[in-house]
Amino acid sequence: MSSNPVSGHDTIRAVLWRGDHLRLLDQRRLPFEETYLDCRTSGDVVQAIRDLAVRGAPAIGISAAWGVVLAARQDPAHLDAAIAELRAARPTAVNLMWALDRMAGVGRDPAALEREARAIQDEDLAANRRMGELGAQLLGNDVGVLTHCNTGSLATAGFGTALGVIRAGFGEGRIARVFAGETRPWLQGARLTMWELIRDGIPAHLIADSAAAHLMKSGDVQWVVVGADRIAANGDTANKIGTYQIAIAARHHGVKFMVVAPSSTIDMSTPDGAAIEIELRAPDEMLSFGGRPTVVAGAKAWNPVFDVTPHALIDVIVTERGVVEKPDAARMKALFGAAQR
Amino acid sequence: MSSNPVSGHDTIRAVLWRGDHLRLLDQRRLPFEETYLDCRTSGDVVQAIRDLAVRGAPAIGISAAWGVVLAARQDPAHLDAAIAELRAARPTAVNLMWALDRMAGVGRDPAALEREARAIQDEDLAANRRMGELGAQLLGNDVGVLTHCNTGSLATAGFGTALGVIRAGFGEGRIARVFAGETRPWLQGARLTMWELIRDGIPAHLIADSAAAHLMKSGDVQWVVVGADRIAANGDTANKIGTYQIAIAARHHGVKFMVVAPSSTIDMSTPDGAAIEIELRAPDEMLSFGGRPTVVAGAKAWNPVFDVTPHALIDVIVTERGVVEKPDAARMKALFGAAQR
Repeated sequence: MSSNPVSGHDTIRAVLWRGDHLRLLDQRRLPFEETYLDCRTSGDVVQAIRDLAVRGAPAIGISAAWGVVLAARQDPAHLDAAIAELRAARPTAVNLMWALDRMAGVGRDPAALEREARAIQDEDLAANRRMGELGAQLLGNDVGVLTHCNTGSLATAGFGTALGVIRAGFGEGRIARVFAGETRPWLQGARLTMWELIRDGIPAHLIADSAAAHLMKSGDVQWVVVGADRIAANGDTANKIGTYQIAIAARHHGVKFMVVAPSSTIDMSTPDGAAIEIELRAPDEMLSFGGRPTVVAGAKAWNPVFDVTPHALIDVIVTERGVVEKPDAARMKALFGAAQR
Repeated sequence: MSSNPVSGHDTIRAVLWRGDHLRLLDQRRLPFEETYLDCRTSGDVVQAIRDLAVRGAPAIGISAAWGVVLAARQDPAHLDAAIAELRAARPTAVNLMWALDRMAGVGRDPAALEREARAIQDEDLAANRRMGELGAQLLGNDVGVLTHCNTGSLATAGFGTALGVIRAGFGEGRIARVFAGETRPWLQGARLTMWELIRDGIPAHLIADSAAAHLMKSGDVQWVVVGADRIAANGDTANKIGTYQIAIAARHHGVKFMVVAPSSTIDMSTPDGAAIEIELRAPDEMLSFGGRPTVVAGAKAWNPVFDVTPHALIDVIVTERGVVEKPDAARMKALFGAAQR
């Protein structure tokens, strides 16, 4: 499978293997600068993950896999140390651990490692295309869709998870209206999702995160479609802060709620959402906007990055292995079997 | 009644009559600059209302009343034209119409008009203090409170509506935790409410608007306390965008929801929320921040400024005339009688 874009609504690739180095579209500078970062050592990849030049759970996992290839070529004797360093770059991204476990299982041969990294990347793109097909079939016709954060080509090998379903649904003529939440504090929705949608010719409106319920009341939205950072064994889903609030509003209005994530996001060893630790980040992110302070000095902020949407508020989880409607522990186990990462 | 601050948690006044001019704390420059704007003509007042140097429905009404005084001193022959111009400065602020109707009923004598403007201002402050008492009694003890937008001294003659209840409740030792939503796109919560709370010695945490439900799930909040821009005859309440979403999340978590507004905010001639027109503002507010774009060129945004919280999601409406628990048309009529503005 090639990782080249294939359709008019799918032209963006953020993680590019160049034979001897990894090229990353620098997401810190989007949407106003399209600059690339060339990583020539595994240390460069660690830095890019830490500094958020690359973000999105699947894209982080893929980048780390290529980091292992670079490490094996540099110095096979220090491969284990390099993998440990990559693993620590973003400790909560579950796909990062999954990708590094896969690479570690291959051994130390650079050629075999390169094949495995390529497989991880190609499988992610194929999974996204498959999820796009499966998710789009569920939408119905002439629907409005609201998404949150960025789950597109920038966050994956390409095409995207939730945004992949939107790409597919728009391409099939099922989607009439797309809305993207701004996603404070980092503005992934404003900066990244709107850039992807405009770039790929999908008309969309940006909304304030606080306008989601009012939008649903207007009748213009039939589906919420979001990604996931970790899905527990019972279907409880950790995702970007704000997802839970949107899920409550969706249920209140009879709007359907779809989670789209590759099976590498499902952690059957985590029994439920209560077992998922929610990362609190520095308050500074909430006290400024685009580098400019918005709040008087001395102010405090509470800045959780994720929240957990309980499975009871989720209508369907879409993975490349299939679809789980009304997810619960039994239905998740039927599709995903025993514990995996 | 004096309009001087009286307690340590109530030191801010934004609308000051100086005998021959109106002095306004310029809210566009807060929290980083505390500058005042001196209005010497009714045209200056119109400009200040239009340009948002003064904002908050009660503060707009009071400023307009002083604008009438300035107009009567300038040129009594053109008083009606000046009142019409003030009325058009912010067409949706219901307290503005109410205050101008009161002033128009007084006649053309500058001394009588000055007494009426002073009465409107003093009555607003007294109403806020009374609402503070009434609302604080409902809170219970050792509670956490979430508020939205700015409803404090900056938005009123002083003390505030919802923020007045928080001032009173904190002063009485009932409130252990205060959280303020950022309030995109204008950031009234971040810029204004946090400034007021820090200035008046009330510890608080800022949160992203999208973190409200996750905060409620944590158990740290027992009450949502918000203001209102217009309350219909059945208790449906128009307020800053995001209020409705918070109300849905509050009901989902068993968190109580309180609306605090002077009776001048109640419009018994509007039967319900469906009859309240929701102002859509320019998309630019959602596409930039502090004059800097946050979204790629060509992006569209949907930017409703208000939403309507149906009365069924409101546990109590607090006014200076008394409290309406579980508001509906019958209970509202019992307290507020026949049609009024």
